[in-house]
Amino acid sequence: MPQSLDELRYELALANRMCAHEGVLDAFGHVSARHPDDPNRYLLSRSRAPELVEPGDIFEFTLDSEPVTPTNVRLYGERVIHGEIYKARPDVMAVCHHHAPAIMPYCVSGEELLPVYHLGAVIGVKAPFWDQRHDFGDTNLLVIEPAEGASLAKALGSHWVVIMRRHGATVAGRALRECVFRSIYSVRNAEFLTQAKLLGTPSPLNRVETERAGEYNLAPGPVARAWEYWEMRLTKKGEAPPRAARAAARGGKKAAGAKMKPTARGAKKTARKGRR
Amino acid sequence: MPQSLDELRYELALANRMCAHEGVLDAFGHVSARHPDDPNRYLLSRSRAPELVEPGDIFEFTLDSEPVTPTNVRLYGERVIHGEIYKARPDVMAVCHHHAPAIMPYCVSGEELLPVYHLGAVIGVKAPFWDQRHDFGDTNLLVIEPAEGASLAKALGSHWVVIMRRHGATVAGRALRECVFRSIYSVRNAEFLTQAKLLGTPSPLNRVETERAGEYNLAPGPVARAWEYWEMRLTKKGEAPPRAARAAARGGKKAAGAKMKPTARGAKKTARKGRR
Amino acid sequence: MPQSLDELRYELALANRMCAHEGVLDAFGHVSARHPDDPNRYLLSRSRAPELVEPGDIFEFTLDSEPVTPTNVRLYGERVIHGEIYKARPDVMAVCHHHAPAIMPYCVSGEELLPVYHLGAVIGVKAPFWDQRHDFGDTNLLVIEPAEGASLAKALGSHWVVIMRRHGATVAGRALRECVFRSIYSVRNAEFLTQAKLLGTPSPLNRVETERAGEYNLAPGPVARAWEYWEMRLTKKGEAPPRAARAAARGGKKAAGAKMKPTARGAKKTARKGRR
Amino acid sequence: MPQSLDELRYELALANRMCAHEGVLDAFGHVSARHPDDPNRYLLSRSRAPELVEPGDIFEFTLDSEPVTPTNVRLYGERVIHGEIYKARPDVMAVCHHHAPAIMPYCVSGEELLPVYHLGAVIGVKAPFWDQRHDFGDTNLLVIEPAEGASLAKALGSHWVVIMRRHGATVAGRALRECVFRSIYSVRNAEFLTQAKLLGTPSPLNRVETERAGEYNLAPGPVARAWEYWEMRLTKKGEAPPRAARAAARGGKKAAGAKMKPTARGAKKTARKGRR
Repeated sequence: MPQSLDELRYELALANRMCAHEGVLDAFGHVSARHPDDPNRYLLSRSRAPELVEPGDIFEFTLDSEPVTPTNVRLYGERVIHGEIYKARPDVMAVCHHHAPAIMPYCVSGEELLPVYHLGAVIGVKAPFWDQRHDFGDTNLLVIEPAEGASLAKALGSHWVVIMRRHGATVAGRALRECVFRSIYSVRNAEFLTQAKLLGTPSPLNRVETERAGEYNLAPGPVARAWEYWEMRLTKKGEAPPRAARAAARGGKKAAGAKMKPTARGAKKTARKGRR
Repeated sequence: MPQSLDELRYELALANRMCAHEGVLDAFGHVSARHPDDPNRYLLSRSRAPELVEPGDIFEFTLDSEPVTPTNVRLYGERVIHGEIYKARPDVMAVCHHHAPAIMPYCVSGEELLPVYHLGAVIGVKAPFWDQRHDFGDTNLLVIEPAEGASLAKALGSHWVVIMRRHGATVAGRALRECVFRSIYSVRNAEFLTQAKLLGTPSPLNRVETERAGEYNLAPGPVARAWEYWEMRLTKKGEAPPRAARAAARGGKKAAGAKMKPTARGAKKTARKGRR
Repeated sequence: MPQSLDELRYELALANRMCAHEGVLDAFGHVSARHPDDPNRYLLSRSRAPELVEPGDIFEFTLDSEPVTPTNVRLYGERVIHGEIYKARPDVMAVCHHHAPAIMPYCVSGEELLPVYHLGAVIGVKAPFWDQRHDFGDTNLLVIEPAEGASLAKALGSHWVVIMRRHGATVAGRALRECVFRSIYSVRNAEFLTQAKLLGTPSPLNRVETERAGEYNLAPGPVARAWEYWEMRLTKKGEAPPRAARAAARGGKKAAGAKMKPTARGAKKTARKGRR
Repeated sequence: MPQSLDELRYELALANRMCAHEGVLDAFGHVSARHPDDPNRYLLSRSRAPELVEPGDIFEFTLDSEPVTPTNVRLYGERVIHGEIYKARPDVMAVCHHHAPAIMPYCVSGEELLPVYHLGAVIGVKAPFWDQRHDFGDTNLLVIEPAEGASLAKALGSHWVVIMRRHGATVAGRALRECVFRSIYSVRNAEFLTQAKLLGTPSPLNRVETERAGEYNLAPGPVARAWEYWEMRLTKKGEAPPRAARAAARGGKKAAGAKMKPTARGAKKTARKGRR
């Protein structure tokens, strides 16, 4: 568990990269975390493919999804997905919005995403649908207006995964690592369910099995084991967030301060370097 | 955006490698760009797998698909795909011809490729079919004759993606990066549509949604974010075009001149080196 | 074939990593081996993603799945799968429990896993089902209680692969390498069977073909050839278990002793190192 | 084109690795070539996963599939596939036997493998089936007896690809590179055909299109372009056959002689080294 804001920034960069590396995110999508000390703020990267996010890219936002410190850097257009869910659900500490290939057929066909194995139980007993068209008519399908985010949060209700018609999914968690675990294993479950539907008749978990298996798998043991695995996979490929930033995150305030307060200028520099 | 012919050559080599790395191209297929200063010319590599294209492999062609400077190196057989589309569509600045695995089932079955999520909207409201057999009878299915290219361009019409029966697809763009973005996300859309059709009944975007989502996603922000991601993925694997060539592209005219004017001899040398 | 307990520990770490690398295991699942000198004990890693297992992570367990030496490190929750099968089947020397993507649709749909090519014959003439729900009602689907493990072992009977409804599969072998070979090729067989069912009507091997092809492929030659291949694939990616541990495994008793007797403290150190 | 026996040995090692790297071969399967100077001999590796084959592993065999020089090293069990096809088809210079995942569903279901795009035309107008069961009853499904190989060669007839029920496929070529090209693109074609059958009704190439497209794609240009691509992909991953052996293959007779004449002892040494 992260013990400081700097460590959370590092973990959040790691979470974005993990989800990308495990096939949940590509150039789009993003993972956020609620501020550990101030429930009225959340942390999210500037606009950047999640696989590239560094601790220094993480900004603070109000629950209205405005940056706490004004900035000129480009921000994600769909921040309200995060802000409106944090508003509606005080128990939620992390949110992942994605378009994972295995989930998309459910967004497109409207077939229900049911938990069909013990690890898939982390989806919960129901993954409700949200159709932007119902409330807002013909849009560009992006969730940009606060009202759109609020409508999505309402559809999520007390559940943990909401399937967005013709768009993707949004996943919530009581902790950052839980949110990553749920995002990855709901995707795996979708793969298995799709294949099972093509082969024959799936036999999903019932309500009690879902609750019991979900609780077991979200305990610290299994989550830590999976987290170590995903982190090592990134690390072995040299894709963990940059060590310098990490050292800063764990080091003295001074280095961290210099590194961690992103400015429009700093972010641009990073972007330029990234381009090479 | 590229600012010189040399930079465009580098970007075009990069575009070819990106499309290969993201699963759109394999040993075959190619991406071209219209000449930035002379609308009657276009740039395309000599015959080579796109993953291997270097800035020095890029030649200039007339819109009749003849090399501007006579050469003995082997050129792609299907250049007229590019030339005839540039002739017919003054608004098109880049073209990608490919046989991506996710698109092929549509070429083979004749099922319609419909946009089913916001990023898939870049396909446009319609991806028309072209069947070489209709106009030309039993051929080798390659698009080699100017008349074949012109027939394909006619089928494309004012659209952005044309599905070639028993062959592949050709994608156009108002800019090189737009063309790459459309090529990659139309492939992703095809994957999701196929799975959705197997699961149940797809619910595609309607015309207004397609236009609005297409416009949003092709704005500079999203395109730049995806481009940075795809370039970094190549770079992290050491697969970006060679730095020497890039330095030349950005450096003085002298080095660039020496490096950039490919000759039959130079190209052969590269090929030989590539073999080792 | 391993010639000492230390070598077996190395081979077992290797077996876990191989199965992970070949797509049979992810963050979860595990491979065990019966103790070569004491049939009443077996060897299994502490709780850790199988791709990360090192020789020093391997502990000894009684057939009641208690660690021979008391320990504070976290152990797998589902150890009884291994212990109860070793109890019920004296001919079994290795066990792999997994949730491979290609097998899961069979667990979910209840369709029968039939051998459909010569290498798939290693499944045996029948892969029985086990449904925890039948004997134990609504559980968390994990196999944690000795009675659950015993019920699973009973369902396995004299066969080699048991399909666990809404959970995964468990595979047994007369030797560690046989168990790995069977685990990997039963997964390949499942992939082919699924696709064949979508295309048309599969023609499975009959009983005699299954027995003859299974016997041929489990002979030392084919198994050694595949083992060399899987080991080299790991080694080329730098993912074989750490050399230091291997040297110890082959070196003098002293070094091995220091390295190989894992203690709670040692294991924690490894874990901490693994995190970096 | 290889110009000496040593160069052919290198090319053959490369061909085996290419087919493995492009997903046609795994631990099993093999590519052979007819001896360039003596049509009554062929070249094939000792028993080893094709991804690991080195020039020094290549042995010479008579068309009765006996090693020209007696040896104690383990040889492939299914050599007669190669020998009997070289006997029956004087025009064939290379053979690939494989169990590629995309082909297996056709072996299992008996659905016909039809060319559905220009590159798939290299399959030829027909890929006949061979069912070992018809001629030989219940076997272990391996092709080990000369009569079995001859029966397979008869089923191949004048075609280029034969689908072996419940087993795999065997592909022939008039040259080594043609054989590799056909092996890889018949696999791609199978992938597209399978998906197209799931989506709707495939529209295959007709006879004339198949002949014309096959001829175009097997000309030196396209084959060289694909070969360069596959070789570079291997090379960039450090998976081309070892350079030392290659130097020997191109260098003086002395070094080549020392390296290239594999003996039981030498081969064992290699094997042992490979294990580490």
